[in-house]
Amino acid sequence: MSFRERTQGATGNESYTVKVQALKDRLESQIPSSLRLEPSLVDNLPLDVTGIPASCGLLTSAELAITELDATAICAKIARGELTAVEAVTAFGKRAAIAHQVTACLTDFFLDEGIQQAKGLDEYYQREGKVIGPLHGLPISIKDHIPIKGRWGSGGFFSMVEQSVEDCDMTAILRSLGAVFYVKTNQPQTIMHLECQSCYGRTLNPYNLNLSPGGSSGGESALVAMKGSCMGVGTDGGGSIREPCANCGLYGIRPTSKTLPMGGGLWYQHGQDGIHPSIGPMCSSARDMRLFIEALHGARPSLIDPDLIPVQLSLPDLSQKKLRVGIMLHDGVVMPHPPMLRALEVARAKLQAAPNVEVVDYVPYQHDEGYSIIRALYYEDGGKTIHQMLAEGGEDILPLSEWIISPPYVKDHDAIGMWKLHDQRDSFRRAYSDYWNRQGVDVVLCAPYPGTAGRHDTAKYWAYTAIWNLVDYPGVVFPTGLKADPAVDVARDLGSPMSPADEYNRSLYDPEIFVGAPINLQVVARRFNDGMALAGQAVIEQIIKA
Amino acid sequence: MSFRERTQGATGNESYTVKVQALKDRLESQIPSSLRLEPSLVDNLPLDVTGIPASCGLLTSAELAITELDATAICAKIARGELTAVEAVTAFGKRAAIAHQVTACLTDFFLDEGIQQAKGLDEYYQREGKVIGPLHGLPISIKDHIPIKGRWGSGGFFSMVEQSVEDCDMTAILRSLGAVFYVKTNQPQTIMHLECQSCYGRTLNPYNLNLSPGGSSGGESALVAMKGSCMGVGTDGGGSIREPCANCGLYGIRPTSKTLPMGGGLWYQHGQDGIHPSIGPMCSSARDMRLFIEALHGARPSLIDPDLIPVQLSLPDLSQKKLRVGIMLHDGVVMPHPPMLRALEVARAKLQAAPNVEVVDYVPYQHDEGYSIIRALYYEDGGKTIHQMLAEGGEDILPLSEWIISPPYVKDHDAIGMWKLHDQRDSFRRAYSDYWNRQGVDVVLCAPYPGTAGRHDTAKYWAYTAIWNLVDYPGVVFPTGLKADPAVDVARDLGSPMSPADEYNRSLYDPEIFVGAPINLQVVARRFNDGMALAGQAVIEQIIKA
Repeated sequence: MSFRERTQGATGNESYTVKVQALKDRLESQIPSSLRLEPSLVDNLPLDVTGIPASCGLLTSAELAITELDATAICAKIARGELTAVEAVTAFGKRAAIAHQVTACLTDFFLDEGIQQAKGLDEYYQREGKVIGPLHGLPISIKDHIPIKGRWGSGGFFSMVEQSVEDCDMTAILRSLGAVFYVKTNQPQTIMHLECQSCYGRTLNPYNLNLSPGGSSGGESALVAMKGSCMGVGTDGGGSIREPCANCGLYGIRPTSKTLPMGGGLWYQHGQDGIHPSIGPMCSSARDMRLFIEALHGARPSLIDPDLIPVQLSLPDLSQKKLRVGIMLHDGVVMPHPPMLRALEVARAKLQAAPNVEVVDYVPYQHDEGYSIIRALYYEDGGKTIHQMLAEGGEDILPLSEWIISPPYVKDHDAIGMWKLHDQRDSFRRAYSDYWNRQGVDVVLCAPYPGTAGRHDTAKYWAYTAIWNLVDYPGVVFPTGLKADPAVDVARDLGSPMSPADEYNRSLYDPEIFVGAPINLQVVARRFNDGMALAGQAVIEQIIKA
Repeated sequence: MSFRERTQGATGNESYTVKVQALKDRLESQIPSSLRLEPSLVDNLPLDVTGIPASCGLLTSAELAITELDATAICAKIARGELTAVEAVTAFGKRAAIAHQVTACLTDFFLDEGIQQAKGLDEYYQREGKVIGPLHGLPISIKDHIPIKGRWGSGGFFSMVEQSVEDCDMTAILRSLGAVFYVKTNQPQTIMHLECQSCYGRTLNPYNLNLSPGGSSGGESALVAMKGSCMGVGTDGGGSIREPCANCGLYGIRPTSKTLPMGGGLWYQHGQDGIHPSIGPMCSSARDMRLFIEALHGARPSLIDPDLIPVQLSLPDLSQKKLRVGIMLHDGVVMPHPPMLRALEVARAKLQAAPNVEVVDYVPYQHDEGYSIIRALYYEDGGKTIHQMLAEGGEDILPLSEWIISPPYVKDHDAIGMWKLHDQRDSFRRAYSDYWNRQGVDVVLCAPYPGTAGRHDTAKYWAYTAIWNLVDYPGVVFPTGLKADPAVDVARDLGSPMSPADEYNRSLYDPEIFVGAPINLQVVARRFNDGMALAGQAVIEQIIKA
């Protein structure tokens, strides 16, 4: 299959096809010829393309070295005068152009603009002898539906594609803190697939092009995994930061909702209060998550968006305390695939042997019921708005869009029906909290998805992440360093499936298919305990990787 | 008019009438004969009945002295062993029985049970030599829809009257902190009038029986004003703590929503997310508001109710800072009555002369629009549930119930309609926050209602409180010490009315009618700045009363 075929986007009527081609031509033309890969390479890509930036010869060794750094290191080097903002964005921008040519991860490329912005920051640094803010000069990649002034974005449909008139809250604050923008990244139709296929095309997983980078922040995960960015901004209403980070071996956190700014984002269900999504960082080190969150909190975003809760990140001191970790091998509904189970078992054994951790089994509390509640909450209009958005653009519905609004979960509600559904949600949250209290765990360690990155269009069981959206518990994913390996990850005999979803998930497994896919795990803490999720993750990672 | 006629409750069909009579008989029989006022007194009450507890001869001078104390003093005396819990609840219980006979403020009276509970606390104190919690022995009165195990309560309709099987979160926590329960208090049909007429009857304002004690927590305000309680618990979704406190010369705060526990309350729109009400104290001193809030926060209620935001009350140090007070004489829609304008003008003059305060004019931001948004949010089902609740009990709709669900504000919404409405709400909040930022005020000082306590069934303009519910800003009301006085509060010539609501409000004014009504003011701070609202109120009160 050619790269063009692999990365085919959503289809539509004649008018759609013509207009979308113009969008694609625009994007294509934004990648300068000096950054083009050889066509022969693009049409004969290896399964794992993460080595291409280093081997293609388009980046200098200095640029390669810069793009191997994490955001904390980039900021520190710039603050010390060892690196300029122009150098940083140039290196990441060039690498992003390469990443796009092998994964189709971008929707907008504007390195020139980024360099101009960086020049201004370098001048400020020269003139004032100090940085403008904690993210001075840091190139940050931004998911398509998060507006940057003057740049392209959309709310998940071709009909919502626009050139944004203003920065949204997140990008305005990041800009004020010194961040530099240079790319927007792909997201799926509806922004509600754990997959990444839009009118622009389908994004591929750089570790294995046959697999999905995940979604909905899948352009980000592919880009950051390619090191075309060291800090991406994603959003998560059901797993859309954690699942793509997990698919691509990255670090990412879905913070407690309403603690980081989402105002001004493009979306087609504004005013929907059933489930509130979160926004957060997708990055290549654990410390970068803290860098991002602390920088944002420092800007006091609740003074800009009164919907936000004024919180500060409070990291507990775990040197004085035994961390109590509940390990959930499976959620009682769908058994994770062998690579994921292996990672969980390795983690359990190492944590059990660690003196500073107390390990208990975490038996899930009615995740099946929770998943059915959140699926109903996603589309309280029965999916009418999705159909309208598609119709307005002449865009065909993708299979995963059709699936996400499918019965029996999704129904068109009246006011009383919505109250009942929200009341069910609240009762579930309450019962879950009581249950969590009884377990007395600090964090739960579990899979972020019932498998590694999956084949395209197969991600239909979100509950390993979505259950935590329902109860609004922060969740951190991190790479275990393990990868799917056909030699060890053979299918296990697990008896009868636990559920139809389990049967489906089992049918997807084939050890050969997932070769090389990174294996991530997820650390979850109680609502508002984002600091515990981060601190707990750090302890657990250290033990697992020791 | 006889007391029975004055306090007539909601009517209904034959079955309703029979069953409601049984409820009233139960309540009547709960007041022991030893605490009965002379029938001749009850049928010839003065306009101001606040002196009756002292003059009726049913309370000992020790009991009278106890009931003159505020909650902080009661707790301190009990903690020092100078007062027993039994003495405290006996004194307040006896005075509550008297209060009920002159204002019809109760729905349940169970002093025996309170004395039993108090005995247990006294034994604990004797045995352990310490208090069980910060509210040890404090008698607390509870609004009807807030369940106490085994006691009567309702969700605003006869059809929802029940004997509660369990404490709700608030009463369970208060009980664990040492509070003693002995009465439940009246609330209006729907719990959504600034008035207090239910199936049990109509509550009267003890300062002027021709006036309303306000609502919906009007049983509380009448009772606390009579000193039949020093600490009441009310709820506020549009003014229901602040307006009754203002009507009866009390202190009260509507905290930022979701900061104090409301779980398990009786209500007929559970799951409604358009507007979240608050719960808070209604009391006779400023310090008692802090006592209540700090005691509750100390119990970490967010571990019980995961819907709560874990906050602590943070009181700013205003000794080092000039408090910037925006004074809003009127909201641009309805002009307050002369007594209220007088209090605002007195306050302004004194604050302008104070060295530690900077006074600016606060011009309201589109309160008219805000009021129309919140009125729509109250009943997103067009009032269908109200009609259903009434029908189930055979209860007739009261005029203010009919009014609150009246067009053009209230409509039956589908999912998309509700999202649009919530989006309007969010846009308004955002615009309001921007506007507030531009004014740079710490607090706004304004009327809590466009007049003092009004005549019964006339409270149709809630925006002086409801606007702050819409933007979720905490608001504190406090007595200025001033009272409506026909000699000075003559009608002013204000030219043409600002609006139909202004015309209506103006038509209600007659200096003679409002004689003796206390005049309260309201101090409002930004969302989550409850500590600033309380600290600002303390500074302002000190200056006004100097």
